[in-house]
Amino acid sequence: MSRIEIDPHDACARVEAGAITGSVQEAAARHGLMYPPDPASLYMSTIGGNIACNAGGISCLKYGVTADYILGLTVVRADGSILKLGGATRKRASGYRLTHLFIGSEGTLGIVTEATLKLIPLPPHRATAFITFPSVESAADAVANLMAAGHLPCALELMDEGALRLVRHLLPAVLQPGVGAALLVEQDGPLAEVAEEELFGIIQVLGGLENRIAQSRAERDRLWEARRSFGKVVMEGRRNYFSEDIAVPLSRIPEMVRRLRQLSDSTGVEIALVGHAGDGNLHPNILFGDDQRNRAGQVAAQILRDAVELGGTISAEHGLGALKRDFASTEHPGAALELMKGIKDLLDPNGILNPGKIFPTGPADDEFLSRQPGWGQGHHELGL
Amino acid sequence: MSRIEIDPHDACARVEAGAITGSVQEAAARHGLMYPPDPASLYMSTIGGNIACNAGGISCLKYGVTADYILGLTVVRADGSILKLGGATRKRASGYRLTHLFIGSEGTLGIVTEATLKLIPLPPHRATAFITFPSVESAADAVANLMAAGHLPCALELMDEGALRLVRHLLPAVLQPGVGAALLVEQDGPLAEVAEEELFGIIQVLGGLENRIAQSRAERDRLWEARRSFGKVVMEGRRNYFSEDIAVPLSRIPEMVRRLRQLSDSTGVEIALVGHAGDGNLHPNILFGDDQRNRAGQVAAQILRDAVELGGTISAEHGLGALKRDFASTEHPGAALELMKGIKDLLDPNGILNPGKIFPTGPADDEFLSRQPGWGQGHHELGL
Repeated sequence: MSRIEIDPHDACARVEAGAITGSVQEAAARHGLMYPPDPASLYMSTIGGNIACNAGGISCLKYGVTADYILGLTVVRADGSILKLGGATRKRASGYRLTHLFIGSEGTLGIVTEATLKLIPLPPHRATAFITFPSVESAADAVANLMAAGHLPCALELMDEGALRLVRHLLPAVLQPGVGAALLVEQDGPLAEVAEEELFGIIQVLGGLENRIAQSRAERDRLWEARRSFGKVVMEGRRNYFSEDIAVPLSRIPEMVRRLRQLSDSTGVEIALVGHAGDGNLHPNILFGDDQRNRAGQVAAQILRDAVELGGTISAEHGLGALKRDFASTEHPGAALELMKGIKDLLDPNGILNPGKIFPTGPADDEFLSRQPGWGQGHHELGL
Repeated sequence: MSRIEIDPHDACARVEAGAITGSVQEAAARHGLMYPPDPASLYMSTIGGNIACNAGGISCLKYGVTADYILGLTVVRADGSILKLGGATRKRASGYRLTHLFIGSEGTLGIVTEATLKLIPLPPHRATAFITFPSVESAADAVANLMAAGHLPCALELMDEGALRLVRHLLPAVLQPGVGAALLVEQDGPLAEVAEEELFGIIQVLGGLENRIAQSRAERDRLWEARRSFGKVVMEGRRNYFSEDIAVPLSRIPEMVRRLRQLSDSTGVEIALVGHAGDGNLHPNILFGDDQRNRAGQVAAQILRDAVELGGTISAEHGLGALKRDFASTEHPGAALELMKGIKDLLDPNGILNPGKIFPTGPADDEFLSRQPGWGQGHHELGL
């Protein structure tokens, strides 16, 4: 189930659901083409999983999410019949958007077995910079200015002090005392000069304390290694962790960041923040000792409530699964959940497709984590 | 119902369904922001209509279609209740994508009254060129090379000889005898030099007979006036017309173009072709005298069948409406139409929302046009 076929003439990929995202990207790149969605897990995640959760990633800001690249799907339905939707055509306004019903439905409406993915020309050149800021709030403000100045970088990754501390051994010398946050920013383009010129413009708008522009492919790779290794460092650390996946409207990033700090201060539970700043998608990582389990659950629940209160979502790019299903009613009005349930019943009347996901089965309270199987057992916890 | 509110801090627009697309773009531009979807009708079409038909336009190739810019919707349902979906948050993977159920549903599932639109930074600079080719096939080949060379222009408009003839009074001097087609190509960017440099790269790949790069804003506007006035010239011409809206996979554009020419030659019905070449969306315009009505209907039906046979769609960006509903079964498998019908019945059990649209009510045959009210009456016909 991991076949990958690149069709350079139609600029699309026909893949089976088990194809690894990173392998699709590499196969496309050999034809000068790009499959943009790049979740952090791209070297282990499958296209089927990406479609089930409408995965995002680092390049979403400029290029959009998985849903924006699905031209066609083959779906096995609850009754075992096979439904083929769409195809290699890049635009279609003919009947209901059935492909989009299955994208993000977490396997609860049908099982995706094949997909036709839209590819775009691969910009062969990239320019990358690491920029430090005195505080995470000042970094967030800089991001807001960037959008208004007409720049759309292909990556704009935020790391707060706690996150920087965890990967500082991988970071360049510009990481001095007094640095409270950093942005990793990248622009791509068809010509090296174009990418560089845009990056210079971006850096000018962002400001910051100091910046370091990658001078080589190797230096660029090191910067990305620092950002990408964050998850690994958290996973391999001595503490338990829970990785959140919220998004808020752009203007509410500074307020969300402030609330995260207050929450950490008032509970004593550490929160290390990374995020795709340009689209409001934040990943607060709750790090806690065995004796902080209860408080960690409270912190996790409060982050979800805060995201919704600020007009955001409890899941930007990972889906709800069983873990966050009880908070679905915090985000979605009852009528929306009822409509989702009606669609679920229409497509899966016997409830056999990935049961127990998305729809609430208990109250949205501070105990939601402790109701999860595995909570309280072992050392590492519920990294989503 | 035409209120437009731009929120520069969240980089989004909150608009009522009656807001004119072009007015939303202008309001966004005053804040340095861009709402990319730009159907040819942008100065008369409404956002509500754009959402109903998942409208596309000239800039889709680089920026995507209406669906890619809908963050939230307010929908009045068949039972009169109001459903609010999504909001200003730019990424959401939380439950089923209900907004996308309503987008492109042509008002048959609910009535959209308000929308929250995603805006992106407005690239302040544009560079534009008009390039001639000996034939429409050679222009189509050039487009294929462009994608493979890593270029993604913000416009790539194709006009064949018949289309050029209709607007030649508006075109630059490079339109010489021997020209069989032309491409209008544009690139945008945050800096003038960036846009120009990319345009030079694009022209180099495209080749062609001759090219003319617009030297001023006024010249650029004239080039666009020629392209945009095509529809008006057709509408105001002495002949009846029927404008198609098909899309085929990129590799099938030359074959579709060849079939259009054969169809025109064998029936004596003129077809003038314009299209958004970069994404395979072609608008063959059937021009016919009163005595050619029957043959025009046959030509129109054959074009729909050819598009589907080549893996394409009978509607790329306009929707099916009543006009093309009978051909829905040519494009979509029975199981897909049944699922659409199930969703229709779930959301509108009494069938009161925009009845008679999308779902077939008669055979997909050469008579589909003559079954339309208005066919055979008056001079101008069924310009979709």
